[in-house]
Amino acid sequence: MTLRHVVCFRFLPGTTPEQITALADGLRELPGIIPEIVAYHVGPNLGINPGTWDFAVTADFDDEAGFVAYRDHREHQARIQSFVTPIQAERVAVQFAT
Amino acid sequence: MTLRHVVCFRFLPGTTPEQITALADGLRELPGIIPEIVAYHVGPNLGINPGTWDFAVTADFDDEAGFVAYRDHREHQARIQSFVTPIQAERVAVQFAT
Repeated sequence: MTLRHVVCFRFLPGTTPEQITALADGLRELPGIIPEIVAYHVGPNLGINPGTWDFAVTADFDDEAGFVAYRDHREHQARIQSFVTPIQAERVAVQFAT
Repeated sequence: MTLRHVVCFRFLPGTTPEQITALADGLRELPGIIPEIVAYHVGPNLGINPGTWDFAVTADFDDEAGFVAYRDHREHQARIQSFVTPIQAERVAVQFAT
């Protein structure tokens, strides 16, 4: 089994492109820090469809223990606190087997 | 660029495991029908974290045209109507570049 972790975010009104870039850049450092990450993709919504949210993260792990290591890692938590919390309006997540 | 399409669903109260299996099985036929799909993963939430939603889809395409071909394909739309609409409480989607 591979575990895929999916997160979608909607940001607060007034969120700037610079804040979104800082979030993306900060998260993209994590595969170099957390060896349990097998694959990692993040990015802003492309604006193709109406009604879509603002940003997504997909992260793959070999197993639940790998996901939990990522979830609870201090460098991940630090980026959530610095880059996500100030701009987050809503967050939805699913973990599923691929 | 690769385009990754992410969808998270929350289902209505009373949704049965059989309905969720029918949804997953129906969607998993689509890569054999729609050649624009480069990679396709669907599945029910594993229940690791509290607050997570019920089901996710990730679909990869070479470009926006490939995504639109999938989005609007009659076999995709037929499965949405048969398997998603009867059980959907909420749906969130993002398309981003990977």
